[in-house]
Amino acid sequence: MTNSSDFRPVALEHASRLINHGPTVLVTTADGSRRNIMAAAWSMPVEFTPPRIAVVIDKHTYTRELIAKNGTFAICIPGTALVDLTYAVGSASGRDLDKFARHDIDAKAGPVLGMPVIEAGCSAWLECRLIPERHTEEAYDTCFAEVVAAAADARVFANGHWTFDSGNTALHTIHHLGGGNFVSAGNTIRARTD
Amino acid sequence: MTNSSDFRPVALEHASRLINHGPTVLVTTADGSRRNIMAAAWSMPVEFTPPRIAVVIDKHTYTRELIAKNGTFAICIPGTALVDLTYAVGSASGRDLDKFARHDIDAKAGPVLGMPVIEAGCSAWLECRLIPERHTEEAYDTCFAEVVAAAADARVFANGHWTFDSGNTALHTIHHLGGGNFVSAGNTIRARTD
Repeated sequence: MTNSSDFRPVALEHASRLINHGPTVLVTTADGSRRNIMAAAWSMPVEFTPPRIAVVIDKHTYTRELIAKNGTFAICIPGTALVDLTYAVGSASGRDLDKFARHDIDAKAGPVLGMPVIEAGCSAWLECRLIPERHTEEAYDTCFAEVVAAAADARVFANGHWTFDSGNTALHTIHHLGGGNFVSAGNTIRARTD
Repeated sequence: MTNSSDFRPVALEHASRLINHGPTVLVTTADGSRRNIMAAAWSMPVEFTPPRIAVVIDKHTYTRELIAKNGTFAICIPGTALVDLTYAVGSASGRDLDKFARHDIDAKAGPVLGMPVIEAGCSAWLECRLIPERHTEEAYDTCFAEVVAAAADARVFANGHWTFDSGNTALHTIHHLGGGNFVSAGNTIRARTD
C-alpha cells in the first residue's frame, strides 16, 4: 500500500540538502523494460546550484550497466522502516531477478525522467541525469549527476529543512555503518551561529 | 586539555568505515608554518582497499590553497561536543586568522604526513594524501585522496566497528542538515542479514 499523499515537490535549490547529512540511499534506474534497485552508502552533494551530486556505483553492478545505457537514475532515501529492504537490495544482483517484484516495491515513474521513485517508507527522492565523466567512473566508480526533480515527505522535510523528531521516526534517515548495521538520524543539535 | 589515551590505530582496511555513514568532518592541513581547519559536510569513501575517499573543498578556500601546495590533509571526525566549533571553523576563513589558535584547538602531528590531527572531542582522524585529479577538482571541487593512516577513540570505534550508545554520546558523529543544524548518530538498527 502506498501513501504518497504527504510527498511534495522540493525546490531544486534545496535538493542537495536531502543528502547533505550522509544518508544511505537506494539507487533506482530503468532502461526500457529493464529496471533495477540497489543500495548505496556512498553519496554526497557536490554543488547546491545547480544541484549536483556524486554517488559511488560499482562498475560491475547491473545498475551501472543500465545507467551506461540511459544516463539517468533516481536516488530514493529510505527511512528506518526500510532497513531490511535496503540491506536486501544491496546484497543481491538485479541481473538474476527483478528486485522490485521480489520485494513488492511500489515505485512510480518520476516526473522528469520517468525513473522509478519510491515513496512508501522513503522520506524523499531525487531524479538525476548522469554527467558523463569517464575517468572518475572508471577509476573511482564515482558517478556525477545533476538533480532535475526532487520531492520529500512533508512530515520530515519541508521548506528546505529536515525535521527529525519523535513523531516521524519511521522516516528518519538511515546511515550504514557496515555489515548490516545502520544508525538512524538521532537528536538535532543547533550550533551557536552568532 | 587533551585526553588522547583512548585513541588507537585503525587498520587501513577499516579506515573507509570511519566516514561510511556520512558524518560532517573537519579538514585540516598545514604547509610549513601555515595551517588551517575547515568543516566539510560533503565527503564519502570511494574504495575500501586501498582506502580512498572523496571530499568537496571549495576552490576559493584557504584550505584548498594549502592542499594545492602540500598535497596532504587530514580528516578529523568531531563528536557532539564539537558542534559549535565545527560550525565556527566552517564560517570563517583561515586567511584572516589562525583558527587553531583562535579556538584553542589542540592538534598534534599525524604519524605519516605530519598533518594536524585532533583527538580531544573527536572520534577519529584520517591522514590523507591527495590524488591529483585536476578536472574534478576544478569542475566539482571534489578532491580524491588515499588514506595513509587512521586512528579512532576505542570507546566509540574498535575492531573496525562503530558502537554508538548512551555511554559515549559526546563522541557520536554529527551530520550537518544545513544552517547550523546538525543531527547526531542515533539508534543502531540491525538489518536482517539471513
